This record gives sequence, C-alpha cells and structure tokens, in this order.
Amino acid sequence: MRKNYLLTPGPTPLPPEVCEAMARPIIHHRTPQFQAIIKEATQGLQYVFQTKGDVFILASSGTGAMEAAVVNLLSPGDTAITIQGGKFGERWTEICKKYGINTEVIDVKWGEGVSASEIEKRLKANPAAKAVFTTLCETSTGVVNDIAAIGSVLKATNAALVVDAISGLGAIDLKTDAWNCDVVVSGSQKGLMLPPGLGFISVSQKAWKLVESSRSPKYYFDLKAAKKALDKTDTPFTPAITLIIALCEALKMIKEDGLENTFIRHKKMADATRAAVKALGLELFAPTAASDVVTAVNLPAGIDGEKLVKTMRDTYGVTIAGGQAELKGKVIRIAHMGFIEEFDIIAGISCLEKVLHQMGYKFSLGQGIKAAQESLL
Amino acid sequence: MRKNYLLTPGPTPLPPEVCEAMARPIIHHRTPQFQAIIKEATQGLQYVFQTKGDVFILASSGTGAMEAAVVNLLSPGDTAITIQGGKFGERWTEICKKYGINTEVIDVKWGEGVSASEIEKRLKANPAAKAVFTTLCETSTGVVNDIAAIGSVLKATNAALVVDAISGLGAIDLKTDAWNCDVVVSGSQKGLMLPPGLGFISVSQKAWKLVESSRSPKYYFDLKAAKKALDKTDTPFTPAITLIIALCEALKMIKEDGLENTFIRHKKMADATRAAVKALGLELFAPTAASDVVTAVNLPAGIDGEKLVKTMRDTYGVTIAGGQAELKGKVIRIAHMGFIEEFDIIAGISCLEKVLHQMGYKFSLGQGIKAAQESLL
Repeated sequence: MRKNYLLTPGPTPLPPEVCEAMARPIIHHRTPQFQAIIKEATQGLQYVFQTKGDVFILASSGTGAMEAAVVNLLSPGDTAITIQGGKFGERWTEICKKYGINTEVIDVKWGEGVSASEIEKRLKANPAAKAVFTTLCETSTGVVNDIAAIGSVLKATNAALVVDAISGLGAIDLKTDAWNCDVVVSGSQKGLMLPPGLGFISVSQKAWKLVESSRSPKYYFDLKAAKKALDKTDTPFTPAITLIIALCEALKMIKEDGLENTFIRHKKMADATRAAVKALGLELFAPTAASDVVTAVNLPAGIDGEKLVKTMRDTYGVTIAGGQAELKGKVIRIAHMGFIEEFDIIAGISCLEKVLHQMGYKFSLGQGIKAAQESLL
Repeated sequence: MRKNYLLTPGPTPLPPEVCEAMARPIIHHRTPQFQAIIKEATQGLQYVFQTKGDVFILASSGTGAMEAAVVNLLSPGDTAITIQGGKFGERWTEICKKYGINTEVIDVKWGEGVSASEIEKRLKANPAAKAVFTTLCETSTGVVNDIAAIGSVLKATNAALVVDAISGLGAIDLKTDAWNCDVVVSGSQKGLMLPPGLGFISVSQKAWKLVESSRSPKYYFDLKAAKKALDKTDTPFTPAITLIIALCEALKMIKEDGLENTFIRHKKMADATRAAVKALGLELFAPTAASDVVTAVNLPAGIDGEKLVKTMRDTYGVTIAGGQAELKGKVIRIAHMGFIEEFDIIAGISCLEKVLHQMGYKFSLGQGIKAAQESLL
C-alpha cells in the first residue's frame, strides 16, 4: 500500500474529473458531437492564453508545438534570436539550428531572467531577425522571465515574439495579446492538469504574416492546414480525442475558479514552498527570478540530490524533480503547478525534511513545515 | 438514453481495461516505474509488428509517424516511389513532395490493390529510388495490399519498403521481418484498440543505413534521438504517458488471445459483414482486394450515403464511416477492427437495414442479418 504524491514540473497530478473523462467510451472525431468539443476546447484555451487570436491543438508533446513555431514562422537562412538560460531555452536554439536558421543566442546565466534591454540591444544589432524565442518559466531552473517587458521591446519591431509557455500557462499570468506575444506554445501536462500528449500554439496576426512567407518544409505541423481545418471546426489529422475531451474538463475547472484566482493559488503554494526551504537553511537556486511554477533549491554540500530524489520517491512515494544537465545532483525542483493545494505542499516538505534528516543534514525537524504553515495562514 | 456503437476505421471501440488504465492517477516518466512500462510496451509492439528490430512510440497521430518515415530515410532530391490507391496512399506523395523528394507515383485504381510486378517495373525504371511507400490497408477504399509480394520484390533491391499499417496492424497479418518491411508505421486508434495520440514506427537494419545518411531537417521526429533515448529505456521528449500505460493493457489482451486468433477473429467479422451487405443486394467497392479491416460498400442509385451515415449515427447511435474524397456520398465503410465481436456486427447490420428500409431501398428486412448469422455459425 503506497500513496503517491506528484510534485514534478510535468506531468502534474490529474483532477478526478480529468481521470473520469478519459475513462469514457471514445467517440468519433468527424461528428457534430466532437465539433462541439473542439469549439469548447478552443474557446477555453483562448481564455487561458488570454488571446482573441487562433489557438491550435496538436497531437504532440510541447516540443512538437515548439517545432511548429519554428517551421511555420521561418525559412532556412532566416535570422532568429534565442534566449538560453536553461535546458528549454537551449531547445529553441537546437530546433532553429536543425532547420537552418541563423541563430543569435543570448546566453543568460542559469538561475537568472533575461533582461529586456539585452534583447533590445541584440535586435538592434540584428535588424534582420524575424523572431525572438524565449521561455515563460524555464523548468530546468525555476526562473520566470518578464514577458511583458520583452513584449514591449518587440512591439515596435518587425520581429515576432515566440514564448515557450509549456511550463506556466494556466499557472502564472501570461497575457498573450496584451503583452504582444505573437506565438505562445504550451503543453497539456503542466498547468492544464492533463496527461502529456497535447501541444498548443497561438498565432497572432503579425505571426500569420511570417507563416505566409515561410518556406521551411512541414506537413504534420503545418499551421495553414490546421487553420483551414479549424475554420471548419475540424483538425487536419486524427486528433487525440480522449485528451481533448479531458482538456474540456480541465478548462471548465480553471474557468470556474477564474484565471486570477488560479494565479493567486499558485503564488500561495510557491510562497509556502520558498518559505519552507529557506527555513530549512536551504537557498533558492533563482532568488531574483523565482517562478510560482517550480522552485529550484540548492542543496548543501554533502547532500546528493539524486539520492535525495530517489529516496523520497522510491521509499516514501513523493516524487519531486532533480537537477537537469549542469544542475544534475546539485539542485532539487519542487513543482507547485496545476492540481496542487496546500496539503500537497505540506506532504512534500514533510517528506523532504524526513529524508534530509536521514541523510544527516542538520536542522530542527518541523521548521520547514512550520514556515509553510505560517505562509499559508 | 442512447447507446452508442462505433464501427468506424479509427477510432475503434476501447476495451474496458484500456478505459480503466487511462483513469488511473498519472505517474512521472523519468522513473524506474515508467521505464518498466516503456520496456513492456516496446516488447509488446515487437510482438504485434512481428519484428526483432527497433519499434518507437511517438507522441503523435499516425501521420506524424508517416512524416517520421520520410524525413528520417530520405534527403531532399532523393527519389522515392509512392503507391496511390486512395486517400492515405496520396498522403505519402504529399509528405514526400513537401520534403523535396522526387516522387514517382504509381496510380492504382481506387478499389484495387497494387501489383507487385508494377512496383518491380517502376523500380527498374528508377534504379535510384531509395524507398517505396505503400499502404497495408487503404482505409479510404477498404483495399488490402499484398505486402508479402511487394517485400519479395524489394528484398533484392537497395530500396527500403515503407508500409503504412496504421489501419490493419494488430488486425490482419503483417510480418515486418519475414516480409522484408524496412519501416512500418502505425497508430494507436485502430487495431490496437486505444484512443488516437500515439504513432509507432519500426526500423530495419537496411532502413537504419538510410537514416544515417538522411539530411532532411528534423527534430521532434528524429529517430536517431529516439534510438539513443530508447537504448536507455527513455524517450527524447515527454511521452504520452497515459496512452502508453493503456497500450500495455491493449497489448496484453492481444498477447493473451494470440496474434493468429486475432487475425482469425477479424476475418470472421469481415466475412460476416461482406455476406450481409451482399445479401442486401449491395456490392463491395473492392471485391478483388477487400480487407478484413474495413468493408467499403457501393450504395445503390438514389441512396445518399451522407444521409445514411448521418441517420444511423444521429438517430440510432451507430457510427459507421461514409466515403472520402471522390467516394463522398457514394460508399459507406463499415469497420470491423479492434475490440469488435459478432454482436457488434449484428447491431451494425441491423441498423443499416433499418435506415436503408426507411430510405426506400427495396429488400426483405432481416436478410442481411441472416446472412451474417450464417457466416458466423
């Protein structure tokens, strides 16, 4: 008998309503019944994306939606600026390079946000740049970027702003239209409280102009085909029916709570987590730009992060994430995204305390929990 | 109160075990627990594909796996032969052209299978052709191609045989290794009795040589990255966890029945369907190459196929498929694939009789059912 807790930055726990929806008998996708679902899902996504523009649902993981952004906006030989401050920023660079894009990289120190003025400078130095690829919440470091500021910079330029909001959409604020985000990509297994398997992508009027002139080869991720289909409330290829039906349930829950309340809840969980780890004498990995999505925490010397994560998960059923790439073994990442409320945080911190204690880290048992409780009052 | 029957060529009905698996709380994908699932799913797929080679699971629909075949095997300027005898054969041509492949098209009359000797002739005329793209069961026409014969032709050549087995895998025989199929692609929502959202692709040693030299741009569908990950029982990007867990349940069911028995069951259902429609005085659309996957039926003059399908579905809850593209309104397609047994066929034929009767078609009520019952004895 093992009870499992999932505090990872994707997948995130599934609400019972979502689980139940996925267990229903399947329906066919070329039916009025499913057309109503496409419509409901698309409108719900527009609410969460905070856009009046087009939002498409892809049968892919978030990376597929990232690829869709690159191949639909750009052509081989085009110039783009990518912002790298972690593993997922690097993914933009990798995808652009694979598709023959001249890629100007802004390297940001891991754990810090990108400065909008640095982007402005780079854009001036590279006036041919057709797009800037950045990240809302960099899952590998827990950093949140100031997308509103970046959007202000890009508004006056010809370059399109492309935001990887896979981590963060539906958890923290991202005003697609008001902040001048031309393309926002996301995935199902994060703030939207679904299993992985759906990618989402929004396209602004400014972005559509780039789509029109793009010569990159594409078929499965062709957004013009997606648009043509969506105009008939259809999809170009067989959609991931079950996940889209479950998406409607998740969107309904977010709508009922309201986006603003959802953001407040995420901030409360993040504040409690940060208070707890600080009270344990641990340091935030990204103190100046910590997101309300996932908290990366530096581990003290002598504490092996991989062992810590493994013990919490395999011995006690509490799954958090370790560090990726250069942070492997050095940080832990506690997610507080999606269907997570205060007692999930309490359980997670309690387990963290237990294992840290067993690993010989010196602190007074309960002090993390107490700080979280105080923060949650 | 409405009871629904799904007799469509994808999605196909879900077994309760599959539904139940999808309703479980989600687990994280970078865990020993999920590694065991990847291993089980991969081995199960190798059983169904009848291959000892690599089989990859993609988070995409079947079309994504088709694109993966093209971009991983070929480079712009390469020559390939595509076989078109319906909508899905045409898709191979479309994808190849999008990626700059010189595409030699073998046009087959809709409703007929391709002849292996025609392929042999074309290969001799195009010795540079690196691959032949064909279809196991052409869903749009109900035709099954003789893949064994095609494989014999290709064995002696340098060209790779690529088979779209999206419709048919796990329902009718396809011996990937024994029939010299170098790449077989499939999808989850057909013979494998799952919702859509997973693509599958097998790769032979001969195909890997093409993969090594391919210069087509790719990232999300890069099979070398997939191979590198699978060697560590992992996936390059977040997998569609829930669907893969459900896949294990479906594969377990197929294994328990045994592939041979599964094929026999599909043949019985197909025979009964064909007997029924013939007894109703209707003609098979593909009499010489009818698959055991889906039966396309010509409609008599004066019977509007779109209205027939709509009435069966919206008034009586029985969903079959109509005709696609040039066959729109002219044929109906009754699928008998996946989790379908004899009384599903009886229900479907009974509903077909009812609506044909209401639409004024002259026949003696019950004669289709009787023929199906006799066939099923």
